[in-house]
Amino acid sequence: MLQALVFDVFGTVVDWRSSLIRRSHEFGRVNSLTADWADLIDDWGGQYRPLMDEVRLGRRPWTNLDDLHRASLEQLLPRYGLSHLTDAQKHSLVEGWHFLDPWPDTVAGLTRLRKKFIIATLSNGGLRLLADMARYARLPWDAILSADVFRHYKPDSEVYLGAAKLLDSPPEEVMLVAAHNYDLEAARKCGFKTAFIPRPSEYGPRQSRDFSAESDWNYVARDLEDLAAQLGT
Amino acid sequence: MLQALVFDVFGTVVDWRSSLIRRSHEFGRVNSLTADWADLIDDWGGQYRPLMDEVRLGRRPWTNLDDLHRASLEQLLPRYGLSHLTDAQKHSLVEGWHFLDPWPDTVAGLTRLRKKFIIATLSNGGLRLLADMARYARLPWDAILSADVFRHYKPDSEVYLGAAKLLDSPPEEVMLVAAHNYDLEAARKCGFKTAFIPRPSEYGPRQSRDFSAESDWNYVARDLEDLAAQLGT
Repeated sequence: MLQALVFDVFGTVVDWRSSLIRRSHEFGRVNSLTADWADLIDDWGGQYRPLMDEVRLGRRPWTNLDDLHRASLEQLLPRYGLSHLTDAQKHSLVEGWHFLDPWPDTVAGLTRLRKKFIIATLSNGGLRLLADMARYARLPWDAILSADVFRHYKPDSEVYLGAAKLLDSPPEEVMLVAAHNYDLEAARKCGFKTAFIPRPSEYGPRQSRDFSAESDWNYVARDLEDLAAQLGT
Repeated sequence: MLQALVFDVFGTVVDWRSSLIRRSHEFGRVNSLTADWADLIDDWGGQYRPLMDEVRLGRRPWTNLDDLHRASLEQLLPRYGLSHLTDAQKHSLVEGWHFLDPWPDTVAGLTRLRKKFIIATLSNGGLRLLADMARYARLPWDAILSADVFRHYKPDSEVYLGAAKLLDSPPEEVMLVAAHNYDLEAARKCGFKTAFIPRPSEYGPRQSRDFSAESDWNYVARDLEDLAAQLGT
């Protein structure tokens, strides 16, 4: 019997790209800076998986996501004429990843799902980042499970198996909900149930994959409210 | 600046003794069993710290709290004429620790404190136990930090320092709220701020300590609502 649902967060639960573009425009206005913010955010978001892979493959010691975001931002700023940003300004941009807006169906969907299941994050974000985000976006998590708890990034199996252990559930009684096929694939290898939600605008014009389910996941739903309906809650 | 409050849970946030006595009476009624339930619960609660100390001192490998509760229950049952309980009945008693009632000030106090600070558990309970309890007792935690995340029990320093790290805060910007002086002492040694709340009826007639603050903790409050008032929220 399914006991708990764990959720990928960036892309699945929150619309990081639109949120960060909006925040960076505001950042530019407040600091009298101009840049192609959307392009910067797209480049920055594009660094997400390669950077974590450096940690996953042992080329970089354990580094939390905020510090990875800072490192990739530093690399990108010269390309956008922003090498002169102060430390506080860079910090403000990096902290933007803590305060992202949910998709329109997110809060209603999670609230319904929580009536029947334990709901938790299972994200490559850090616990503090995810707690800040939950407060900001009013995400009703029962628990926050994060990469820094396991000191591993998804899709390392340690993350999924560690989550099942902390939830005191056999993996087959936990379901990962994600907008990314690779994440579901890794979860399934660990014995998890799987649910795919498409977020076809997550990456904006650069989106090249995850438009639809690429395998026979246990559930495929339009969004989190549809998933709640399919799960009878 | 204080960023986060972390809370001892058993005794500080929930009234485990009254809850378990009430539940065990109900358990007796449903299963047609008679026993001195209050005495059993007092004995069981008295095993809490000695059992964890076995793990802390390396005499027992890492064992989560549910399994420690089960082990101590097995030892106690013969004394109460309950050796014949089924596995499911023992499981039901052990699971009672997941469903404990808050003190009258708890939910209102936490709700006020959460307006200003990140609030999280910092408990020797397991993550699943604490998530079950939060759902049952409507405790509005931002995050659940538990012994099984750190694989150490309080008062080991790994628990406090690990919590500060996951909260991405220096220890001096985190405050432990607890009804137990030993817990606050260990937190203070790790650099935490400290707040004491007396729970003089936690252990019932057997209570022998923690009637009042035994050191100059940063805050001493009557209860969680009083603490919220003292912290200006």
